[in-house]
Amino acid sequence: MNASQKLAAKNSEGKIICVGLDTDLNKIPDSLRSISNPILEFNKRIINATAEQAAAYKINFAFYEKFGSKGFDIIEQTIGLIPSDILIIADAKRGDIGNTSEMYARSVFEFFKCDAITVSPYMGFDSVQPFLRDDSKLVFILALTSNPGSEDFEKLILNDGSMVFQQVIKKALQWNENRNIGLVFGATKIEELKDNIALFGDLPVLLPGVGAQGGRLEDVLDVFKSADRLNLLVNVSRGIIYKSGKDDFDSAASAELEKMNQIVKKLLII
Amino acid sequence: MNASQKLAAKNSEGKIICVGLDTDLNKIPDSLRSISNPILEFNKRIINATAEQAAAYKINFAFYEKFGSKGFDIIEQTIGLIPSDILIIADAKRGDIGNTSEMYARSVFEFFKCDAITVSPYMGFDSVQPFLRDDSKLVFILALTSNPGSEDFEKLILNDGSMVFQQVIKKALQWNENRNIGLVFGATKIEELKDNIALFGDLPVLLPGVGAQGGRLEDVLDVFKSADRLNLLVNVSRGIIYKSGKDDFDSAASAELEKMNQIVKKLLII
Repeated sequence: MNASQKLAAKNSEGKIICVGLDTDLNKIPDSLRSISNPILEFNKRIINATAEQAAAYKINFAFYEKFGSKGFDIIEQTIGLIPSDILIIADAKRGDIGNTSEMYARSVFEFFKCDAITVSPYMGFDSVQPFLRDDSKLVFILALTSNPGSEDFEKLILNDGSMVFQQVIKKALQWNENRNIGLVFGATKIEELKDNIALFGDLPVLLPGVGAQGGRLEDVLDVFKSADRLNLLVNVSRGIIYKSGKDDFDSAASAELEKMNQIVKKLLII
Repeated sequence: MNASQKLAAKNSEGKIICVGLDTDLNKIPDSLRSISNPILEFNKRIINATAEQAAAYKINFAFYEKFGSKGFDIIEQTIGLIPSDILIIADAKRGDIGNTSEMYARSVFEFFKCDAITVSPYMGFDSVQPFLRDDSKLVFILALTSNPGSEDFEKLILNDGSMVFQQVIKKALQWNENRNIGLVFGATKIEELKDNIALFGDLPVLLPGVGAQGGRLEDVLDVFKSADRLNLLVNVSRGIIYKSGKDDFDSAASAELEKMNQIVKKLLII
């Protein structure tokens, strides 16, 4: 299955929650810290507990890169633990001049064998294009992000009255020849989501920001229900993986994900 | 010496060329490919041949990440080869929500011990701020980049008549409380450089794009001379490290860098 097919299959089963593996040594239970590779063990137990219910996993590269090559090893090993029918997103926010983005694409798609990546649009088409070549992958371009800083540049108003992030969406639709572009849109930006969802066309949407950042799953679902569309992933990281913070973190994560899936089933007619 | 001091010291010696270590296995001489770590050996010989004349080294993370953890090891080992008085820039174009940018800052500044990083401004202040905390480092924010895609979003015209990249420069000046912000400005964009250099204040400027991308060192120098200012680094990657493409790549790199330094001495009154 290619990336779009994996997403469609999970959505059709009523699964839209992406589990964010922002694994932080300071936030995992004390009992794990004495073993040889606590982060990998944490990820393994989270994946085992949630794989039946998750729509996707998102690996936040920053949390691993801070350990240098050891962190990259943990990413590689974590990816090896994820069942092959579940979408794996490299949350790496990459983007550079063409020949450099080409190398990032090789890293994420060929070396790590992820299904999808998040990319920053700032540098424009030739910074995004190398990620688009392989039509079996998905490329989530940052549109309006979940953080306070999204006001600084993403929401600047252009001379035609539109905002910068709306131009990103417009270009994303133009660049989508291989049908493998998606958008990142903050789950904390519900008003903007309502106002702009009609612009998204049928692009898949990755929505981070539910939980610790203040976004509410129910609010996101309402907007997608009103727009009568699926093709979405709502990412939850801290709200699932650190739900308990104790030794039962895996069963607590599973229970929280199950609760969210029930909300999805109730609110979203799939 | 902190990062700004390293840059100032080199500039005062008439050195402004940053050697870009975009080391690509496909472009290094055949004779190196049979040894155990050809990329590290290539970097070692380039550094040994150029350290006397270089103002800085820029490590393009993408070229190493495509090898996963092994690539991160090569970055770490390469950094260990660079003399401590020379600025090391992690060209990584990172940027994410606050708690994630914090992890990227730890990776680049604490794990890899680089002096400086390039960051993407798209996500705004809280995506940049974690990189700014350590005032001994330098943070080069993308303003107008050297690539064709810079037309897509960076040059969009806002409702006040300014362009997106000019707003980035304006914010960079506002955010510069720790005096550790710099700008990335494409050496291929000479007209825009002329028109905007007065907006830069005293921010250090990293200018990529000379050589393979079509920018000319002389044109950049003319603009800085007219503006009567230094505090700059002109990056050259392929134009130096692959100057010969044969076994004499290191002496060819040294000769090319020396030639550029002569141009700098002639054109820029330091």
